[in-house]
Amino acid sequence: ESGAFAQVRRMINRGLPAQDVAHLLESSPPKERDLLWSMIEAEFRGDVLQYLTDDIQAIYLNRMNPEEFLAATEGLDTDDIADLLQQLPDTIIKEVLVSMDTQDRHRVEAVLSYPEDTAGGLMNTDTITIRPDITLDVVIRYLRRHQSIPDSTDSLIVVSRKDHFIGMLPLTRLLVSDPNITVREVMNTDAIVISADMPDSEVANLFEKYDLISAPVIDENGALLGRVTIDDVVDVIREDAEHSLMSMAGLDEDEDTFSPVLLTAKRRAVWLGINLLTALLASAVIGIFDATIEKVVALAVLMPIVASMGGIAGSQTLTVVIRGMALGHINSGNTGWLINREFIVGLINGAIWAAVVAGVAMFWFDDMMLGFIIGTAIIINLIVAVVAGASLPLFLKWMKIDPALAGGVLLTTVTDVIGFMAFLGLATVFYL
Amino acid sequence: ESGAFAQVRRMINRGLPAQDVAHLLESSPPKERDLLWSMIEAEFRGDVLQYLTDDIQAIYLNRMNPEEFLAATEGLDTDDIADLLQQLPDTIIKEVLVSMDTQDRHRVEAVLSYPEDTAGGLMNTDTITIRPDITLDVVIRYLRRHQSIPDSTDSLIVVSRKDHFIGMLPLTRLLVSDPNITVREVMNTDAIVISADMPDSEVANLFEKYDLISAPVIDENGALLGRVTIDDVVDVIREDAEHSLMSMAGLDEDEDTFSPVLLTAKRRAVWLGINLLTALLASAVIGIFDATIEKVVALAVLMPIVASMGGIAGSQTLTVVIRGMALGHINSGNTGWLINREFIVGLINGAIWAAVVAGVAMFWFDDMMLGFIIGTAIIINLIVAVVAGASLPLFLKWMKIDPALAGGVLLTTVTDVIGFMAFLGLATVFYL
Repeated sequence: ESGAFAQVRRMINRGLPAQDVAHLLESSPPKERDLLWSMIEAEFRGDVLQYLTDDIQAIYLNRMNPEEFLAATEGLDTDDIADLLQQLPDTIIKEVLVSMDTQDRHRVEAVLSYPEDTAGGLMNTDTITIRPDITLDVVIRYLRRHQSIPDSTDSLIVVSRKDHFIGMLPLTRLLVSDPNITVREVMNTDAIVISADMPDSEVANLFEKYDLISAPVIDENGALLGRVTIDDVVDVIREDAEHSLMSMAGLDEDEDTFSPVLLTAKRRAVWLGINLLTALLASAVIGIFDATIEKVVALAVLMPIVASMGGIAGSQTLTVVIRGMALGHINSGNTGWLINREFIVGLINGAIWAAVVAGVAMFWFDDMMLGFIIGTAIIINLIVAVVAGASLPLFLKWMKIDPALAGGVLLTTVTDVIGFMAFLGLATVFYL
Repeated sequence: ESGAFAQVRRMINRGLPAQDVAHLLESSPPKERDLLWSMIEAEFRGDVLQYLTDDIQAIYLNRMNPEEFLAATEGLDTDDIADLLQQLPDTIIKEVLVSMDTQDRHRVEAVLSYPEDTAGGLMNTDTITIRPDITLDVVIRYLRRHQSIPDSTDSLIVVSRKDHFIGMLPLTRLLVSDPNITVREVMNTDAIVISADMPDSEVANLFEKYDLISAPVIDENGALLGRVTIDDVVDVIREDAEHSLMSMAGLDEDEDTFSPVLLTAKRRAVWLGINLLTALLASAVIGIFDATIEKVVALAVLMPIVASMGGIAGSQTLTVVIRGMALGHINSGNTGWLINREFIVGLINGAIWAAVVAGVAMFWFDDMMLGFIIGTAIIINLIVAVVAGASLPLFLKWMKIDPALAGGVLLTTVTDVIGFMAFLGLATVFYL
């Protein structure tokens, strides 16, 4: 083993925090990534794995046997172990669970019993609970018996004898209050409580809105199951925000930047195929008017302008509405106003740019009629585009289809078809 | 005043937390929004303002005089007051600062002296500091003299006599350690420290990577200035992630979903104008080949397919690279691999879809030559598209232009021009 090699190995296993090693792997093309991975010591692999994006986690997890998995994940948080396990096939999950000690198995099983994208799947089971009738002094002495307190613990959770949630005792309040009073007197009873089946994006909204650091998770009977912490919520926020961006290009938010050639080609091919159908439909519309184009070839020169202006205007509206839906701004009470505003905006911008394009067309081809036709087509297409941009995502959501994924393709179909139809249709009426 | 009106007023000022009132305002069209705002009591307005998006903040801040501003923002955190102030004109800022009491003014001025998008502009000055040589017991007694501890305080900051940063004492460690030992013995000296001029997106990366809840901010001499807390960082993460999505549609991440008609029309018009230049350039390219189109009108029918397939393939690559750049995955060491991969992916997908489209074209127009021409044009355009999609954002970043904003427009220009040029150029060679 050469000196440089040994040095890299030492740096990876001793010098860098797991987050940085994960970042290094994510920033490396497949071959170098595999080499780096092979240099990470077995016990350190779990630490690194938990910080990797799903795509890359899956690659390395699938190369591990249950013993390696257990060795790698020893000492990780329950929610992180559960996250990693969920990437494995069921038979392996069972093998791993059987090899765990009873307490760990129960904890991991509790998290695994909820879908990954709910509060239950996100939660941690490392809660410190106290009873309401003890004094703060007793709480402080109880805490001092701990070796350490779990990360991101800003509050102790107050529970009944039956482990039902009662309230929260922030550490900061514990520290400023008279030690002789009881937990019940200072605890926070109107704290935000999260039910295990709440979707993770709703959990993220609550954390963001109320500046939470941790929140208790309860089952349908009010029994405490665990807690969600801000570090996991930050990941949800990042992923949710990236979801729209990536979906609009037909990509997944877990996509590995350096995924290998064949995997990349396969995933992208599907999206190209879907968009080809849109393009073929647009071509079919143009095909209807081939006689008109044959007579006035300037139509072929100008027609992409009509379609592209519609596409741009529509996708701006689509983006605003998709973001507004993600932020929870849009509801049945204000969609009417929104679509109406878009209609007027489409009319104004349609009129402005129709005038400009009409002028250009008249000047370029020395044809008044052509200017009038393209101007009218642009006004029509811009209005249709913005109204479609505003209403399509609402319709798709109602159909339970992801608007960020399907919205762009459908919108382009609308703006291409209407754009070509309006422009070439008008031209056919006036020229033939 | 009618009963329903009084009820809404009561709900806004007494029933709902400021976050929910802000959300209600953000989800309302302008007229209803103004009505709701007029019902919020003067002292409560600052609380609500701090949760509003910049666009809407600016509207209401500009309607306030300095007295109203002071009354509204009393009791807010320093960083939040500074944030709001930054939206006002300089003369008003001075008036407000003069009317503040000395301590508050100094604090706000400290934050204002740093750009809004740096750690200094993000920081809060409500730190609790302790000395290294006292015992934990003294710390606990010192804390008990406080009425309350500021929100998101997970650690006390250990400073020297000259207020220079020395280390952090997590509250959880304070609670589990022997009260007789000194702060110096248990404090964390390798805590993450942030310099005041660090860009806020870098601060966010540190918080995300190391699961931080708060971190100290120091000046160039190591003197403690304040601290950054996770709640403010979450907003930065959300905004950074939204930035790419909104920029790619030529929008600002602070955009108000319900901005009024004229403002909306004006902002969108600019983007449409920029894109019109792209479309005109594409038309000019088509115009070069008008004689060819006149002879073979099928070219006009099929040409949008070539351009659109290139646009889709390129924008997928562009999105992956822009996201990879935002996550810090892409550096000079791996761009070569990335562009090379994209080239091969472009070749593979180009070949697959060229074959499909060539088949469709031959069958549709009963013309072998046409199939060969469009297939070749698609392969050329897809390769150019993905290589441009990968290299354009890197080039733009090097030119200090925002890739998310300019990348899409430039890419479309490339894919349209190359698409039409390749398809119509080949056709001219073979048909004329």
